Amino acid sequence: MHILAVQGSLRAGSNNRRLLKVVLDHLPVGVTAELYELHNIPLYDGDIEAKGLPDAVVEFRNKIHHANGILIATPEYNYSIAGVLKNALDWASRPPQQPFAGKPVGIVSTSSGIYGGVRGQSHLRQVLQYLEAIAMPKPELIVPQGQAKFDEAGKLIDEKTLKSLENFVPAFVKWVERLTG
Amino acid sequence: MHILAVQGSLRAGSNNRRLLKVVLDHLPVGVTAELYELHNIPLYDGDIEAKGLPDAVVEFRNKIHHANGILIATPEYNYSIAGVLKNALDWASRPPQQPFAGKPVGIVSTSSGIYGGVRGQSHLRQVLQYLEAIAMPKPELIVPQGQAKFDEAGKLIDEKTLKSLENFVPAFVKWVERLTG
Amino acid sequence: MHILAVQGSLRAGSNNRRLLKVVLDHLPVGVTAELYELHNIPLYDGDIEAKGLPDAVVEFRNKIHHANGILIATPEYNYSIAGVLKNALDWASRPPQQPFAGKPVGIVSTSSGIYGGVRGQSHLRQVLQYLEAIAMPKPELIVPQGQAKFDEAGKLIDEKTLKSLENFVPAFVKWVERLTG
Amino acid sequence: MHILAVQGSLRAGSNNRRLLKVVLDHLPVGVTAELYELHNIPLYDGDIEAKGLPDAVVEFRNKIHHANGILIATPEYNYSIAGVLKNALDWASRPPQQPFAGKPVGIVSTSSGIYGGVRGQSHLRQVLQYLEAIAMPKPELIVPQGQAKFDEAGKLIDEKTLKSLENFVPAFVKWVERLTG
Repeated sequence: MHILAVQGSLRAGSNNRRLLKVVLDHLPVGVTAELYELHNIPLYDGDIEAKGLPDAVVEFRNKIHHANGILIATPEYNYSIAGVLKNALDWASRPPQQPFAGKPVGIVSTSSGIYGGVRGQSHLRQVLQYLEAIAMPKPELIVPQGQAKFDEAGKLIDEKTLKSLENFVPAFVKWVERLTG
Repeated sequence: MHILAVQGSLRAGSNNRRLLKVVLDHLPVGVTAELYELHNIPLYDGDIEAKGLPDAVVEFRNKIHHANGILIATPEYNYSIAGVLKNALDWASRPPQQPFAGKPVGIVSTSSGIYGGVRGQSHLRQVLQYLEAIAMPKPELIVPQGQAKFDEAGKLIDEKTLKSLENFVPAFVKWVERLTG
Repeated sequence: MHILAVQGSLRAGSNNRRLLKVVLDHLPVGVTAELYELHNIPLYDGDIEAKGLPDAVVEFRNKIHHANGILIATPEYNYSIAGVLKNALDWASRPPQQPFAGKPVGIVSTSSGIYGGVRGQSHLRQVLQYLEAIAMPKPELIVPQGQAKFDEAGKLIDEKTLKSLENFVPAFVKWVERLTG
Repeated sequence: MHILAVQGSLRAGSNNRRLLKVVLDHLPVGVTAELYELHNIPLYDGDIEAKGLPDAVVEFRNKIHHANGILIATPEYNYSIAGVLKNALDWASRPPQQPFAGKPVGIVSTSSGIYGGVRGQSHLRQVLQYLEAIAMPKPELIVPQGQAKFDEAGKLIDEKTLKSLENFVPAFVKWVERLTG
């Protein structure tokens, strides 16, 4: 089983990236994973698309296509997902292929506030429905006040989040197995 | 009264831009407007922000701040708003000022399909709530099958859309007056 | 395979019920189905619940529990699902069991307007996520202007809708098989 | 100024009702208010409607019509608003008049969990848009873990919530003044 983990924001010190890395660290032996960064995906422009998909976009689509399951970490900005992530998904969804179709997807998020990104997660699920991805409904991985949950090195230092994670990761692996078996 | 009209996609032949232009053409005498393009707004990155807001972002925020009302045209991609637009709004929302706070906003959209972008409009309203903008609830301007509603020169050639527009524009002007008076 | 089909409004002449019946008529041989009406589900009241679940609610929950898959027809009122349907789902979700957990669900809707209930479908999907149901992302069955699609006897008289249906029904049966197999 | 406060659930011990009452207690001198309960609003049924609106519905609509502003307290069930509240709003929205049109509305919610009902508030805002109500975007009044915020007598015993309230109530009164002046 191979998992593509998409990091929804660009900032080096992103707690969402920390969260995603910790999730990947908890994947069982035998499951491979790649953390994918969106820095090279340009702003979507239909006029650029008409000349051919940019290389970074082709690469992103191929990686989605070849993964058995996708994990997405999404910061919540303005009650929705990061524009940077939405922009990458807009490129990913262009014809002729729809690489997300039928893919099992897990969502994780953290925020500095107490809501942990639940409204962003809700928007992402609606986007994923269009993409024909199959998002795992529960358990959810929502981490409020992310700045207090990781140390400087990105190590998870919160017991409650660890328990959420130990619940989420095996459920996600089963989800991928169930839908690809 | 001065209106800032934000065009949510970059493509030159965008029907949303055509729609936005026709809306601006119908503004009454005495109301000025600027159509604002998002080509220069970079991908949002907190590390870039930490060094100072990019010039294009500062300009965008200033234009929002100085307008009495905002019009936004948004294509719907993947049941949400364009990533390009979301990305620009993410920049616009950064501290210290919130330029959208208290601003009256009108939303217009068109799509090639029969739904005209209603799901994108719904997401945009949720984003605008966070931004403390005051989106006009009704009338809505939703134009299904935009490719059949404009000629090559961008002229509106559909009677029904024209009527929607003649309903929408005065209501929007009143909305701006009501909330800024 | 046994399907429970939940009719989201009470009106005798409901086009959503007509749509649901036509969907059930297209189920393949060997698949049984029951059309379930919500007339007997009372308004949700935690004080009534504290005395024991009403008989109609117990029956509804049992029927969900024993079905292999669920179909829900939902009118759209006020950009969301019918209160009558939401109320029944509120009862269905009460502890100790969660009968929807893991159930494959298909959604159908029709409306008198041109949008066919897409905003109601979107809200229903969010509710179903909480319920841990697994809603089929695509194909969707959305029928605009339902009043023109059925004759007095409830017979489907629209070729395009028939084609949508012939696409939707086998996909839904496969969806149920995939998730229960 | 007269405010209609709509209580979205029926349970006698509802923390949302407690919250709503505390909000009403903080209204300034000169503002009158009525707390409206939904116990008498029947399940929406188009066949009943065809024979005439039930008395309780007529009363509800009149009270909305005559209020200068509306407050709604909504529990969150299954990531959406209470079915009981949605059902009442479905009746309220029927032709020929739309009593919510142009009305300033404030939303409050509390829940036993840590999210305070934010997803329910989001759905309610979408419903209110259809109703042409003008929901106040911010400040929001969201009270997580409501069971710890009130004593047995319904008295608010949480300093942080009190501060939210002292922020929310004057803003809401100004919102009503701004939109009705």
